[in-house]
Amino acid sequence: MKYGVRNSLQATVTKVKKGDIMAQMDCKLEGPIELSSVLTCDSVADLNLKEGDKVMVLIKAIHVIPVKE
Amino acid sequence: MKYGVRNSLQATVTKVKKGDIMAQMDCKLEGPIELSSVLTCDSVADLNLKEGDKVMVLIKAIHVIPVKE
Amino acid sequence: MKYGVRNSLQATVTKVKKGDIMAQMDCKLEGPIELSSVLTCDSVADLNLKEGDKVMVLIKAIHVIPVKE
Amino acid sequence: MKYGVRNSLQATVTKVKKGDIMAQMDCKLEGPIELSSVLTCDSVADLNLKEGDKVMVLIKAIHVIPVKE
Amino acid sequence: MKYGVRNSLQATVTKVKKGDIMAQMDCKLEGPIELSSVLTCDSVADLNLKEGDKVMVLIKAIHVIPVKE
Amino acid sequence: MKYGVRNSLQATVTKVKKGDIMAQMDCKLEGPIELSSVLTCDSVADLNLKEGDKVMVLIKAIHVIPVKE
Repeated sequence: MKYGVRNSLQATVTKVKKGDIMAQMDCKLEGPIELSSVLTCDSVADLNLKEGDKVMVLIKAIHVIPVKE
Repeated sequence: MKYGVRNSLQATVTKVKKGDIMAQMDCKLEGPIELSSVLTCDSVADLNLKEGDKVMVLIKAIHVIPVKE
Repeated sequence: MKYGVRNSLQATVTKVKKGDIMAQMDCKLEGPIELSSVLTCDSVADLNLKEGDKVMVLIKAIHVIPVKE
Repeated sequence: MKYGVRNSLQATVTKVKKGDIMAQMDCKLEGPIELSSVLTCDSVADLNLKEGDKVMVLIKAIHVIPVKE
Repeated sequence: MKYGVRNSLQATVTKVKKGDIMAQMDCKLEGPIELSSVLTCDSVADLNLKEGDKVMVLIKAIHVIPVKE
Repeated sequence: MKYGVRNSLQATVTKVKKGDIMAQMDCKLEGPIELSSVLTCDSVADLNLKEGDKVMVLIKAIHVIPVKE
């Protein structure tokens, strides 16, 4: 399986919170890094996404914004 | 400084490759995790982005896509 | 502070409306121009975003779509 | 004509720079505000986009990121 | 009318579901293909979007992700 | 394999054009519908993407913009 994105990371789901249309998923990468995702509740249902699940998270490079302080 | 995004991560720039309009920046987070960013060459120039720079990378949660294999 | 985006604009928040997962922020730029943002309620809380706040709004150039009528 | 985006702004194109795949368009809104767009060269050709053109620029609210300094 | 996006497709709205801030619209393209859109409830109201409506759907090429299984 | 996106469509690659940093892939869905994707050349190389390939294309619902004429 090959994804046409630069960034694909292994993660463990730590929390899923469903709203009316959108849901938020928090996950933990290796080490101390955590990420949040926002997706539709329909997608959460399709994936049967729940705490403890092992997932890949995909992020297109165009959506990664560097900031220099 | 507070960013209106769920994900803001500290990173060290490992490579900057400039094209005609767009550029690609690779960076290393804590631990073994690497990320790539695509941005305009103009933004690379504004930030004077180069190998070894410490940056924050911002990623809106809406751009993080979980996949279950 | 330098952002790796082409568009960073000064704005004053005119309205914040929170939903269950997502929130909508309206703001006013210089002159007659208004913009809306959608972000998570978590981000609204992190920024303590409220009417009257001075903010910068960042927009990557890739998300600006020209239309010719 | 109605667009399913929160932000649609009138603009005048000030510069178009074409690369191999992607192009960058700069434009001026009312007042002192300028915006940049990145799109494919194919889209620049379809729109016959050039300096002086009047365009609408569309920006989904989800792509507007507030930052509080 | 010319849009600065690579993908503009004719569609018929099959369902609109409104949440507090965001809404989801499902539509049908020619043939067996269906697409979903997420937009603000404000945009749904602006377009008076409802089942049976004929719409164009715009998708920037940068948001189309190929996957090879 | 389950993707956390609303839209996943089967497609056949009809053209791949590489630039310096970014590449453009055109593909054909079932019926008369064609889509274009923009991704990094690195991703094209990772997927070994070429004319005739069968791919899935993923599109998050948030990136589908309805327009009513």
